Amino acid sequence: MAGSDVKLVGIRPCPYVNRAQIALNLKSVEHEFIELNPYTDRDMLVKLNPVHKKIPVLIHEEKPVCESLIVVQYIDEVWTNGTAILPYDPYDRAIALFWASYIEEKWSPLLGELRKAEGEEEKAALMEKIWQGMALLEEAFLKCSKGKAFFGGDSIGYVDIALGGFLGWIKATEILAGRKILDGEKTAGLVGWSERFLLDKAVKDVIMEPEKLAEIYQRYQASKAN
Amino acid sequence: MAGSDVKLVGIRPCPYVNRAQIALNLKSVEHEFIELNPYTDRDMLVKLNPVHKKIPVLIHEEKPVCESLIVVQYIDEVWTNGTAILPYDPYDRAIALFWASYIEEKWSPLLGELRKAEGEEEKAALMEKIWQGMALLEEAFLKCSKGKAFFGGDSIGYVDIALGGFLGWIKATEILAGRKILDGEKTAGLVGWSERFLLDKAVKDVIMEPEKLAEIYQRYQASKAN
Repeated sequence: MAGSDVKLVGIRPCPYVNRAQIALNLKSVEHEFIELNPYTDRDMLVKLNPVHKKIPVLIHEEKPVCESLIVVQYIDEVWTNGTAILPYDPYDRAIALFWASYIEEKWSPLLGELRKAEGEEEKAALMEKIWQGMALLEEAFLKCSKGKAFFGGDSIGYVDIALGGFLGWIKATEILAGRKILDGEKTAGLVGWSERFLLDKAVKDVIMEPEKLAEIYQRYQASKAN
Repeated sequence: MAGSDVKLVGIRPCPYVNRAQIALNLKSVEHEFIELNPYTDRDMLVKLNPVHKKIPVLIHEEKPVCESLIVVQYIDEVWTNGTAILPYDPYDRAIALFWASYIEEKWSPLLGELRKAEGEEEKAALMEKIWQGMALLEEAFLKCSKGKAFFGGDSIGYVDIALGGFLGWIKATEILAGRKILDGEKTAGLVGWSERFLLDKAVKDVIMEPEKLAEIYQRYQASKAN
């Protein structure tokens, strides 16, 4: 099951693609990165992921795997070398799946809403929701990590990847919306975690600089407006 | 890891609760069913599932597991007797997770929208989306089942539970909206599958009669209007 014939299709600023990249790095899987822009290369994407037409798509032995969290789990199960990404214990797995799903479905969409929000009142209402979520995630971090560095314990695990893939965009959203999301006074555990995560060797060349992401976002918004 | 100290919290008409019941039945797990209405017993639910405040909650050895598809996976991993619910092969698992997620996030919400839809135009637009989804699911069924009875092959698996948990509500929605969703001419594979699924001994006492569900829905809507 070694790393033969592995391709990752996506673009580097995409947080979902970043999750797959981090998982591949954690397992030291050699792979080819195929740059594919979902906005301009739609035909190719329709072939690879006809249901959602989204990136990332992992192609392993010519078979496509779609949906970033499923891709991460697939990588964990195929390349069993190194530390496991998902916990072994069924209850710990259920907890990890629970928080990853919360981040995916409930919390992270708020970032996009905040970037698009207009006016102070709308921004304040969204920040309230974002902080409520951050408080839940801080509590989850303290419980899952049990005093260690990551949600996954001593090493990066499934919830780390689910949330950490967004770190560049969390910081870019701070710049774009003029609001602090990672706040050391409110969520000290998560702030420390974010620093450790971004310095990890599986992560540091994956997540782009927040300033660069903010610039990409502004350029994309401007192109849509024309 | 036997079935000691297992409680399932929920109400019987809920399709998400039905998923957990079916998984427990497949693994012959003895359990206590605790009737809890999310609308009237909110305080107890907040304690058990503070993040989503939703049913089902599986309580195993006094620890709560939330989110129906996570509960199903947990049951599969803790009670390893009988046939596995999720496939062993990583690629087959990824495919099963993919379709379950599609059913959960994209397809099943359309049923609720259809029940609430007013006017022929809105209903027709929703039916178009529902049928597009059914066509995808028919194709998935033919691929996953490989000519056998279920998405999971010879026995009920993860995608069967994800979709099959909704069968009572699919038929209730047909009654309420006056539209055919399970159509033997359009999706013959799925119609045959639905009949086999509902007759399975793990399922037949779980999914309520469509007429009864439609009546519950109408009563609930009337109570909200007062």
